[in-house]
This record gives sequence, structure tokens and C-alpha cells, in this order.
Amino acid sequence: MKKYQIRTDLAIESVENISDEYKFEEKVIDNIKITEIIIDKEYEEKLNKKKGTYITIEFDDVTDYNNRQKIIKVFTSELKKMLNDFNILESFSCLVIGLGNEKSTPDSLGPNTIDNILVTKHLFELNGNNVEEGFRCVSAFNPGVMGVTGIETSEVIKSLIRSVNPDFVIAVDALAASAISRVNKTIQMTDSGIHPGSGVGNHRKELSKDTLGIPVIAIGIPTVVDAVTIVSDTINYMEKHFSYVKENIDNPSNKLKVGNTNYIKKDNIKDLDDFDKKKYMGFLGELDEEEIKSLIYEVLSPINYNLMVTPKEVDFVIDKLSLILSEGINKSLHKKVLESGTN
Amino acid sequence: MKKYQIRTDLAIESVENISDEYKFEEKVIDNIKITEIIIDKEYEEKLNKKKGTYITIEFDDVTDYNNRQKIIKVFTSELKKMLNDFNILESFSCLVIGLGNEKSTPDSLGPNTIDNILVTKHLFELNGNNVEEGFRCVSAFNPGVMGVTGIETSEVIKSLIRSVNPDFVIAVDALAASAISRVNKTIQMTDSGIHPGSGVGNHRKELSKDTLGIPVIAIGIPTVVDAVTIVSDTINYMEKHFSYVKENIDNPSNKLKVGNTNYIKKDNIKDLDDFDKKKYMGFLGELDEEEIKSLIYEVLSPINYNLMVTPKEVDFVIDKLSLILSEGINKSLHKKVLESGTN
Amino acid sequence: MKKYQIRTDLAIESVENISDEYKFEEKVIDNIKITEIIIDKEYEEKLNKKKGTYITIEFDDVTDYNNRQKIIKVFTSELKKMLNDFNILESFSCLVIGLGNEKSTPDSLGPNTIDNILVTKHLFELNGNNVEEGFRCVSAFNPGVMGVTGIETSEVIKSLIRSVNPDFVIAVDALAASAISRVNKTIQMTDSGIHPGSGVGNHRKELSKDTLGIPVIAIGIPTVVDAVTIVSDTINYMEKHFSYVKENIDNPSNKLKVGNTNYIKKDNIKDLDDFDKKKYMGFLGELDEEEIKSLIYEVLSPINYNLMVTPKEVDFVIDKLSLILSEGINKSLHKKVLESGTN
Amino acid sequence: MKKYQIRTDLAIESVENISDEYKFEEKVIDNIKITEIIIDKEYEEKLNKKKGTYITIEFDDVTDYNNRQKIIKVFTSELKKMLNDFNILESFSCLVIGLGNEKSTPDSLGPNTIDNILVTKHLFELNGNNVEEGFRCVSAFNPGVMGVTGIETSEVIKSLIRSVNPDFVIAVDALAASAISRVNKTIQMTDSGIHPGSGVGNHRKELSKDTLGIPVIAIGIPTVVDAVTIVSDTINYMEKHFSYVKENIDNPSNKLKVGNTNYIKKDNIKDLDDFDKKKYMGFLGELDEEEIKSLIYEVLSPINYNLMVTPKEVDFVIDKLSLILSEGINKSLHKKVLESGTN
Repeated sequence: MKKYQIRTDLAIESVENISDEYKFEEKVIDNIKITEIIIDKEYEEKLNKKKGTYITIEFDDVTDYNNRQKIIKVFTSELKKMLNDFNILESFSCLVIGLGNEKSTPDSLGPNTIDNILVTKHLFELNGNNVEEGFRCVSAFNPGVMGVTGIETSEVIKSLIRSVNPDFVIAVDALAASAISRVNKTIQMTDSGIHPGSGVGNHRKELSKDTLGIPVIAIGIPTVVDAVTIVSDTINYMEKHFSYVKENIDNPSNKLKVGNTNYIKKDNIKDLDDFDKKKYMGFLGELDEEEIKSLIYEVLSPINYNLMVTPKEVDFVIDKLSLILSEGINKSLHKKVLESGTN
Repeated sequence: MKKYQIRTDLAIESVENISDEYKFEEKVIDNIKITEIIIDKEYEEKLNKKKGTYITIEFDDVTDYNNRQKIIKVFTSELKKMLNDFNILESFSCLVIGLGNEKSTPDSLGPNTIDNILVTKHLFELNGNNVEEGFRCVSAFNPGVMGVTGIETSEVIKSLIRSVNPDFVIAVDALAASAISRVNKTIQMTDSGIHPGSGVGNHRKELSKDTLGIPVIAIGIPTVVDAVTIVSDTINYMEKHFSYVKENIDNPSNKLKVGNTNYIKKDNIKDLDDFDKKKYMGFLGELDEEEIKSLIYEVLSPINYNLMVTPKEVDFVIDKLSLILSEGINKSLHKKVLESGTN
Repeated sequence: MKKYQIRTDLAIESVENISDEYKFEEKVIDNIKITEIIIDKEYEEKLNKKKGTYITIEFDDVTDYNNRQKIIKVFTSELKKMLNDFNILESFSCLVIGLGNEKSTPDSLGPNTIDNILVTKHLFELNGNNVEEGFRCVSAFNPGVMGVTGIETSEVIKSLIRSVNPDFVIAVDALAASAISRVNKTIQMTDSGIHPGSGVGNHRKELSKDTLGIPVIAIGIPTVVDAVTIVSDTINYMEKHFSYVKENIDNPSNKLKVGNTNYIKKDNIKDLDDFDKKKYMGFLGELDEEEIKSLIYEVLSPINYNLMVTPKEVDFVIDKLSLILSEGINKSLHKKVLESGTN
Repeated sequence: MKKYQIRTDLAIESVENISDEYKFEEKVIDNIKITEIIIDKEYEEKLNKKKGTYITIEFDDVTDYNNRQKIIKVFTSELKKMLNDFNILESFSCLVIGLGNEKSTPDSLGPNTIDNILVTKHLFELNGNNVEEGFRCVSAFNPGVMGVTGIETSEVIKSLIRSVNPDFVIAVDALAASAISRVNKTIQMTDSGIHPGSGVGNHRKELSKDTLGIPVIAIGIPTVVDAVTIVSDTINYMEKHFSYVKENIDNPSNKLKVGNTNYIKKDNIKDLDDFDKKKYMGFLGELDEEEIKSLIYEVLSPINYNLMVTPKEVDFVIDKLSLILSEGINKSLHKKVLESGTN
């Protein structure tokens, strides 16, 4: 079987696959899970992720106002910590870049975030002394996408950085998830730089501290998922479901509840043994996750059905997610915004 | 196992499930497949579709200009035929209704189509004699969606029909598909009326010739699909793929091609026999399509992962699809537009 | 000279023309001027305004966050007062109507406001007992514009009211101003009902307590002005400017300041006497305001230059103004929203 | 009186003021007037316009489909002529730049035009040999506006040009008019380069063949006008109107028609003599156009009423105008598009 290259923009998903040999820290604040993963040089290739620190923030409902406020708080706090780790002073200037196509809703997270970034560079240039205390020198830009501009996005960004000459860069992008559960429910933040286009399968040129000489912080949220992932996730859940049902089906008191139980939240679900796997799923049950994905890819790809999809509520969700990012970035960059509480 | 109610807005998909006992006509023009299905009273319940004529137009790429022109031509011709079957004269007035939420891209097909409908009712009322020959009296309206208005959509439509008093109604809506292959690639047209909200799971009140006394033609395109469908479609293709591979894998000359072959276009793929089904897929292989869907639903539903999704290119596709519908409707309603060729 | 029908949607502007015989109350809160005008039956014709109470709220900068909060507070307070005057109880249901064309920025105030109205009618119908305390039964609707729907807007609204059967109606619309100074800087609220289309010159059918039997509160903001108004306003200011310059030009200490002084804020500007009027402006100086407007109309109208225009920042201003209206309406209708402070 | 700097982006308006000493060519095709003005080095300062060739295309109604086709034809022909004059070969690569703020309707002409430019640069870079005959290497870009990016627009453009390295540049921008009659009804095309921001009063850095070493063709349409212009235009028309009325008022057969006559289309209107000017307009009648504008500016400016305005139909007009420009540019750049007739 040809190997399906599991493609995920999320370090946490790469690491989960080898969770026995890789340790990382988790904490939970207000039902929001924060994971810090540090990828070393030696693991770069194995994980297909550039070395660096990856912060993952996982949350639930972004349509609820109060929940959004909590996410903003956690995100702001983590972003400020990363700025600190880079020794970024308040006097350092920042260029915020919104990657993606603003005319394509699932890809418009970056440009939509940019729309609400509080820019000040022009005020500093007019007369820096007149800019109110507590504001940093910030500029913001959408480089567009190659299909619309005809220009390689990384070229646009590089030429802009040469011209604007910021002390550091923050880049915001929509990502692809490799698990249904993370779509629109995860913020990843990393100091390892950006790789424009990698989220949709094209590996273009890296923009990072290594290549540019200035810190490049990348912030992303997965907004799309491919059919291979949906199917392989489901087969995975199917195994858990079979196991859960097997354990509980003979227990008369549980009988009625089986159908509606959120079995993945149960701790005591055992993995199916090899015999049961084969019984329930035949040859499929013998494959590991990567082999399953390769098989599904081989099934869907030649008939052009491996769609990249997004939940149908995408317009409303992108709207809320980009507000969370822009408010968190504004609060992290401008002390004054953090203090006043308004955006 | 609990039964998953296969929900499809497409009559062709309901009929396919009982294709042995149900006959219907197909023709192909310019690579566009047109199917006419007539559902009788006696099959209403079995097919969960109201009696009436259902025209299905299946096509491929809507991003290609020339292909779009062909689709418009076929669609216009079929719509004019349906108007004829209703004995709709050129003097009959029409109200075109766009169902769905214009702020939600995958649901905006109806409102977007309305935007380009050539309305003339106000001109007829000002002075009918002054309206140029070849134009029908046409009005157009978006009733909005209940989540935004707080008002039952069918109530809005009914009150509007009472007030506008058209001779017939055309309603345009985004549908749900029950096959990946039909998403954004199928127009369904029916004289059986509309059932606002049925596409997203709520059965609201029917608007049809039976309930309103005037012809109601419904035109829809499936723009979303649920995860259950994606997974069950894939399991279905998997069986075909296994069968194809089994037949060809030992043939050395085909070996290299297997991975990239569009096996569903091959005529000679046999169904797997029961032994092979069980070998490849275990218990899964013993289930029929409806049972598979019920199982997947039982797996995904309690953990809230049965997403309704739409392809990530949704913005561009909806744009093209609504242009196809509006141009076809304008040409069918206004003889002058059909003749002049411009819209 | 033919008479130019001074067209203004603002009662305050009608009344100002006969300010010697008409008294009305003014108060100022936080730099926001609130005027209450009561038009009696006997003045209806003279003022070309239907009898009723007209509240005018005049303010300055809506781009400033703090200023917007003040405007919302005043607007909410005045709207609640008007609801009280109508003896509208908390149990009364409301239909909010957004007049105007959402695709035309200066005309989109109504539809944009509707977008953020908190609707609850569908929740009350599902199960009224489950709706949280502090929320009223509210629905919201955009009837569209005749040029797009082909249907008379007042017909759409009437049929909807018959169907929804609310206890009272609030209608939001973009108006035309007859003074540059009021464009985008004035909210008018009245209990005299709405007259769809009157803002753009077409007098369609009235929707009011008289015609519908339920209270109809109309809320509007002038967003456009015609060239006749701009020119006549300027000629008016010219006279004031001439007078101010005449008084001050010989005073050496003021000489340098003349050009930049906001002369209309000076109390001591005398009207020019007839001799000076004629000296400065010839025949023009002999005309009263209505005659000036008639003359300008006669000059611009036959050459099609009496444009209706809007300030070029219209997109940003409409955005802010509709947020002010929706927040104020939500706070006035839902006690819970007023208390929680969030929208 | 302080001098009002008459600001116009249109060379034709600068030249009209000294039409006695400046000759230029005019032709009319299909009711579309084309004027070619060549500004020499020696007139640069007097006309406040950089030396170069300025083509002005004046037309009427852009809402009519047939009229738009005529405008596109004339515009394409003139643009191709200018490319020829620069000796631009088919092999030369082009960067099309859309200036202005896409979120501000009257300023969105440039970005909206870019949306429909057919870009090919990425295809040429992938494999130039595979690009179909008849297509030029074209890229397109919106540099954004300083208020949103915080970055000087000319800096963005310069850095992009350094990176993309095109053989020539076409830049599209919304302009300010200094006559009501030209708003949304005039295309100006010039080989003299662009001056980002000059249209709204800020003179930023020039981008032209002189500064960049490659041809820079600027294409603009006036979409806004200030109140000073509206008032001074009206006073100007008033004089013509007075003169027309004076000539015709005593002619009983004309009496009824006076009010509706398009007097500016009459050839025989004499200028008012000094006596009449003073009689009708007093001191105002003694001023020349520049003095009138200075006076109006002095009247409106200190009270903040010199609004920049745009006709209220701006959304629809900008939509049509940007389609005209994008189609004309595509046809001029790509031989294949010109030949196939479709865009």
C-alpha cells in the first residue's frame, strides 16, 4: 500500500502519534486546555515539524460570549509569555501578517484578523513623541494568495519585511486539522516561523528567525479537514464504540443508555483485542492509523472525493475566531489596550 | 441497532435505493445527465418524497465558463418544459422565492439567486402597457431564516403569497446531499412544492399546489453533506476498490496503474461476495447501506462529530451556481431575455 | 419661480422654519442635544408632517467609542420613555422592521440594524415557559426594496404584520437630511408611524397606529443629502460668514483668526441687513430660504445635477450607527440585556 | 482672501482653466468623448500636473449594458495605444496595482478592479512553456491603505516592484473630481505615473518611469467630489441659467419650457455681462472661479462642512466601473482574451 503522508499543521497531533516516547506539559484553565510542546532538532524529521515551542490552546464553544472572553484571556497570556521568551521589549516594532484568501470564508481567518489589528506605525512616523504611552509601533498586512496575485506569497512577505523592517513578526493563518475534534476549536502558537501554503499542501519557503534574523511567531486555527481524516477518525471511534458497547451491552441497567453515551469521555474503555478487531472490522481492523489513512486515501483520491471540507456554520465561526485573535494580539502588543480592557 | 433516517432532499437518491422496482428515464446532453423521476402517490411514504415530477440535472465542473453555458442551456430547457406541463402562459405572473440564510455561505444559494432575478412587477403596476413585449410580471423575495427573523419561514411566504397573489411560485434553496458525488454538482427541479427547513432537519409546513392552489416549482442544489454520508460513501467505495484491486492485482501489466485508476468508472467491477466482504471488513461487511449509516450515526452522534460540512471552495462555487440558476430562471420567465441572449 | 418642495424627513427641520410660532423643549446631556416636538393635527399640513411626538437626538462623533456609549444611553432612555407613553408592557410582542436596500451602503441602515436585533419569537413559540425571564417576544424583518423585489414595500410589511400579529412595531430607516450638519449626526424617533419610500421622494402608504391599530415607532437617521441642500446651506453660511467678517475684519487683534474661526458657534453674529445682503449677493440676497432652494432646484434639476450624495466615509459611519441603534433597541426591548450591559 | 488650491486629479480640468492658451485634441465615438492632452515640462507647475500624455474618456450611463460594451471597447483601444507608444511587447510582464481601501465603497475601485484581473505569473513560473499562446505574464496586487496597514503605500508598492520585477506597471485608483459632471463618468489614463494618496490630499512619493525606470500607466475614475466643487459648479450654472432665462423669458412661446430646458446644452447662451452679474449675484458675481472656490472654502472649512461626498448609488456604480476597467485591462494585456471576446 502507498503511504499516505499524514498532513497536520498541529504539532500536538504529530506528537500524539509517538506519545509513548514524547513527554509534554498540559494544564487546564476554565475548561481550556493548554499544552506546551518543545520539538528538538533531532525530532524535526520524525515529526515533520520544525524545532521550536508549540503552544496549543483547546476550547469548546466560541459562540458563547463568556467563553470567548475566557479564551481571549488565556490566549493573551500565552502570547505575552512567548513575547517574553523572545526578550521582546515594549519598544520593539511588530508587523502582523494575515495569510490566506479573504474571499474564501474558511481561508479568511488571517485577513479577517488583520482587519481589527490596531496599527500605529504611521502615527509613530508622523511624530513618535505624540503617540500615547502604552502603544507599540505596529503595522499589519495581507499579502494575498498566489492564485489571486500571481505572486509567490513568501516573496511578497519577504519584500515587505525588508521594506518595513520590523523587530518581529506575528503571522496568522487558517490551518488544516487532522482530527474532526480540533476543527475551529484549537489555537496553535509557535516560535518556529511560518511556511506559507503548507496548510494546503504546498511547501513554499520558510519564514522564520533562521531565515529572516527576527522572531517570527505563527498563530493558526484549523478550519478545514479532509475526508480521509473524517473517515479514519470515525473508524477509530467505531473501535472505541464497539469496545464500549461490548463492555456495557450485557449490563441491563446500562442497556437503554448505550446509544446516547459520550463514550470517548469514559476512562475505562479498553482497546479492542486483535481478535475482536478482526471480528468487527476484518482486514480493516488489522491496520494501524497510518495504514488506515493510506487505504482511505487510495480509495478516495483516484475518484476525486478526498474533499477538503469545513463545517457549514463557517461564516459565523470564522467571525468569532478572528475577533478572539485580533483582541488577544492587540492586548499582547499594546499595554494600553490590555489595561483599558476595551479593544 | 437504532435506525438512521437516511435524509436526502434528492428524489434520485431515494429512488436509487429501490432501483430494482422503480424505473426512470435518463438522457445525456453535452456530458450533462438529465433524469426524470415521477413519484406516485403510493410511493410517497416508502420514498419519503411527495408525489410529483423530479428532474435531476447532474454535471461536473462549474468553474469552467463554457461548461456553465451548457448547464444553463439544459436547465433553461428543462424549466421551460416544466412550466409548459403546468400550462403556464406567458401572461402568468411569477413570484421567485430565495430560501436560506444569505449570511451563511453554504446556505446562501437562494438569496444569491434572487439578487439577479429580473423583477418587473412594479413596472407592470406602474403602467403595464409600457412594459416591453417579452417580459413577464415577476417579483422576487427572500423570506429570511427563522433564527434571524424569529418568524416561521413558511408563515412569511404564505402571507407574502396572499399579498402578492402570483399565478405561480418558483422557490430556490440549498439542499443536503446524501452522496459526496452530488455536492454542488446536481440541480433538482420538482413540481411537488417546497418544505421550508426540511433540508436542515426541520420539517415545517408544506407549500405546494395542494396547499396553495397555485403551481409551486422547487429548484435546489445540494451544497452540504453530513459526516455519516462521507463515511458510508467511503466504505461503499472501499468495497468497490477491494473488488477492483482483487481482480487486477495479480495481473502484472496493471500492477502499477492500480493506485490511480478511477475504478468507479469501470463497468466490470463485480460486487464482493459475502466471504470477501467479511474477510475485508468483518462485521461491517455484513451490513447493508442503511445499517452502515445507522451504525456510523450511532458512533458519531453521541460525541457531536456528525458535522454538516461543505467543500472549502464554497464561496466560489455558490457564486457560480447561483448565476446559473438566476440566468436560467430569467431566460425561462422572460422570452425577451432568452432571445437577446444577455441577462 | 416654481416652488421647490423642501423635503425633509426631520420634524425638527420643518419646525425650525416657523420657530417663531412653534415652541419645543430642548435639553443637553453629555453634549448630546435632545429635542421633543409635538405636532398637532392643525399643523400637519403646514409642516408636512403627521401629528405625533418627534424626539430628535443630535450628536457629534460616532467614531469615538466613549461617545457612542453615551449616545446609546440617551437613545435607549428616550426609546424606553416612548414605549412607556404608549403603555407598552413587558409582555407585549414587538416586530422590528429594517427598511432600505442592504446592497446600497447609504440605504442599508435599517437592514444592518436588523442583523443585530436579538430575536426570540421562535423561542417563545417553541416553549414560552423556557424563555429566560427578562426577554420580550421579538421578531425582526427586512422587507427589501421595490426595485429589487418588484413588490410595494408597504404591502410586504402589511402582510407580514397580519401574519406575525405583533403588539407593536419598531421600524428603522435611512432618511434624507435637509441640512449638511445633520447628516449621520441625528436620530429621529417618532410615534407617528412610517411612510415607506418617503425618504427618497416616493410617498407610499402610511403604516401607523391609525392605519394598523397598533403602535408604530419609527426610528431614522439622515444619511444622504441633495445638492440643493448643500448649496443653499452654503449660501446661508456665506451670509453669516460675511456678517462675521464685517464685524471683525477691522479689529486688528482678530485679523489673523478670521479665516479659521467657527463663526456659527459665535452668539453675536447679526443677520446682514437688506442693504448688505444685496451688496454681497445681489438678487440672491433678496430671496428667502425657500426661494433660494427653489432657484437652485431650477438650476440643477434640468441638467440632472441635483445628486443625492453621502459622505465618502459612509461604510464606516453606517456600521457604527446601526450598532448604536441595534444596541439601544435591544436594551429597550429586553430588560435582561439592559441589566447585563452586554448585547 | 486666502487662496483655495483647486485640487483635481484630472488633467482635462486643469487644462480647461487655461483653454485659451492650451490646445488639445478631441474625438467622439459612439457618444463617448476622448480627449488627448499632452502636458509639457514647462506647464508642469502651472497646471500642477506631471508632464506626460493624459487620455480622458467621458461617457454617460454605465448602468446600461450596451453602453458599457461601448465604453469597454473605447477604453481597450486607448489602453492598447498607450502600451504601443511605450513600445511594450507582448512578452513584457505587467504588474497591476489596485490603490484604495476595499472596505470603503467610493475608494474601492482599485481593489475591485484587481479582483477580476486575469493573473498568470504563477503559471509562467511553474512552467512558462505550458501557458497558452496569447497570454501575457501578469500579476496583480492591492497594497492596502496606510490607515489600515500603518505602512506608507508607496513603500509597499516599491518593495513589491523590486521583488516582482515587472516590465511595466498599471495602477488603478479612485480619484476626486472638480466638477459634478465628471463624477463616475470619466476615465483618465496617463503615462505620467502615480502619486499614491494625492487623490485625497496627501502628496506621497511619486511612482513613475522617472523614479522606477519602467513605464507606469495610471488609470483613474473620479468617484468623489467636495462640497466646495458642488457649490461653485452650481453658482457657475446659475449664471448660465440667469443668462438663458433672460434671453428667453420674454419670448412667450418659450415661457412654459424654461424650467425644464437643459440650458447647458444650448450653444447660444451668452455670458452675463458685468452689470448683470452684479445685479444677480452682487459681490459674488465679481469673483472669478478660483476666487469663488476660495470663498466657499473659507465659508465651509472652519465649520467642518466641506465634506467629500459620493452619489448615493455608489455601490452599483463602482461595481459596473470596476468591471469596465478589469475587462478592458484584461483585453489589452492578453491577446487571447481580446480575441475570444469573453473575459
